Amino acid sequence: MNVIANSYSIYSTLDHLRREGKKIGVVPTMGALHEGHLSLVRRAKSECDVAVATIFVNPSQFGPNEDFQRYPRTLEADLAMLHAAGCDFVFTPAVETIYPEGYSTYIEPPEVANRLEGAFRPGHFRGVATIVLKLFMLIPAQVAYFGRKDYQQVVVISTMVRDLAVPIRIEACETIRETDGLAMSSRNRYLSASDRKRALGLSRALQRAQKMVDAGCTNVSELESAMREVLVSAPVDSIDYAIVVDTETLQSIESIKHAAVALIAVHVGKTRLIDNQTLVRRA
Amino acid sequence: MNVIANSYSIYSTLDHLRREGKKIGVVPTMGALHEGHLSLVRRAKSECDVAVATIFVNPSQFGPNEDFQRYPRTLEADLAMLHAAGCDFVFTPAVETIYPEGYSTYIEPPEVANRLEGAFRPGHFRGVATIVLKLFMLIPAQVAYFGRKDYQQVVVISTMVRDLAVPIRIEACETIRETDGLAMSSRNRYLSASDRKRALGLSRALQRAQKMVDAGCTNVSELESAMREVLVSAPVDSIDYAIVVDTETLQSIESIKHAAVALIAVHVGKTRLIDNQTLVRRA
Repeated sequence: MNVIANSYSIYSTLDHLRREGKKIGVVPTMGALHEGHLSLVRRAKSECDVAVATIFVNPSQFGPNEDFQRYPRTLEADLAMLHAAGCDFVFTPAVETIYPEGYSTYIEPPEVANRLEGAFRPGHFRGVATIVLKLFMLIPAQVAYFGRKDYQQVVVISTMVRDLAVPIRIEACETIRETDGLAMSSRNRYLSASDRKRALGLSRALQRAQKMVDAGCTNVSELESAMREVLVSAPVDSIDYAIVVDTETLQSIESIKHAAVALIAVHVGKTRLIDNQTLVRRA
Repeated sequence: MNVIANSYSIYSTLDHLRREGKKIGVVPTMGALHEGHLSLVRRAKSECDVAVATIFVNPSQFGPNEDFQRYPRTLEADLAMLHAAGCDFVFTPAVETIYPEGYSTYIEPPEVANRLEGAFRPGHFRGVATIVLKLFMLIPAQVAYFGRKDYQQVVVISTMVRDLAVPIRIEACETIRETDGLAMSSRNRYLSASDRKRALGLSRALQRAQKMVDAGCTNVSELESAMREVLVSAPVDSIDYAIVVDTETLQSIESIKHAAVALIAVHVGKTRLIDNQTLVRRA
């Protein structure tokens, strides 16, 4: 496994492999890796000739009062896990490599970025869209793998890639969960033992919604009330949103026709957690 | 010469040529071609294996009160000229191909886009940066050729390409002028015979500045006063700016150390004209 921090080196190395006809898959990460990230790397390796991971805690996607400084940085452990997962290249740029002095070009992300996470975290998706586009320029991959755990992020990135005609395919992969249902997240390590139990409210609320849909409920406001009830009794400390919306536009709907997505963002202690579940109506 | 309107076709055709090892040069235009554009195409052809021109009157770079609707469209003549200049491919997308319904991703251009043209034409460089980036995604060229006549545009695009690490080289090429000095522009065809004479004020003002520098003047406010004097006596109808600034940042300077750029934007009749000249201090 090659670890490369220089942007010229990563581009020229991978461009060379691509010219030789190799298929390259990339997994952008902020490090603090867990089984969710590793499942993406293994998928990249199984579908492509070359699997590339990037590790970069991107300052431009954190708000001024968010956790950029204390975001977990575990490079040594990350590299060991990537090596074991079969990763071929890891790109680990310094902040000054990505945002040198005088840097001032950003991506104004698509409309769908203004809702939900975008409303609670102003500027977040501008930073995400910018770093992801720049990584796609530096890493000439044919496919990029993202976890569905950040559902809206996948929609924003897919829409940006389509709008700007970036020549890469976006693969959204299933959320990986702990055995008790908690969606894996680098931020789970912030949770105290008691917070960790309360955090199960998210996956339980989503399971409850899916069960109601399985039982024939298609009424969105009933589903949303049920999710809130589970979250309040967890109890979580506050709910940013717990809603059921259109899978592509993330716009409000009144009832589920074929499918919808349930999206939750809450605070548990000092930690903000998100989770989601696609709700499919069975025939 | 192949004329292609479909975005999938242009990408796959050129990507195939690039995989074969061909060097591709692209000349983005809005059509209404003149000798300035053709000189770029000939340069692309002389330096690359494949010369590509694009013709697209980009709505997102026109302000609501600007000339998008009446901008000259002369496709048949343009294609004949490109063919004669040795162009291999012409990409002529429809507006709906570039901006399909629901399109909403834009490039927030670098800081240098806020000055001068950016101040007089709000949103102009956002539209320019967006279309140029999208064309670079659709046309996998190694080199792109732009005329220096749009000096700030070249700075904005070069900065965007550097910031986002877009894998393409930007070549800025000399402004082509009529024999009497008027910089070639698609908008020159708007000029009446009398406006055409008054429009010579721009090139004369720039020549005057260069002569003063040749004679040892390095004082920017003297140079700017002299340029204004020439413009006022042309007479042009109004002056948006006539200034001497740093060649890279386009920031104000007090005196010329090694080089600077003189930039002019004026109105002549209903037409807005720009021109510029790099002022080099000789030893």
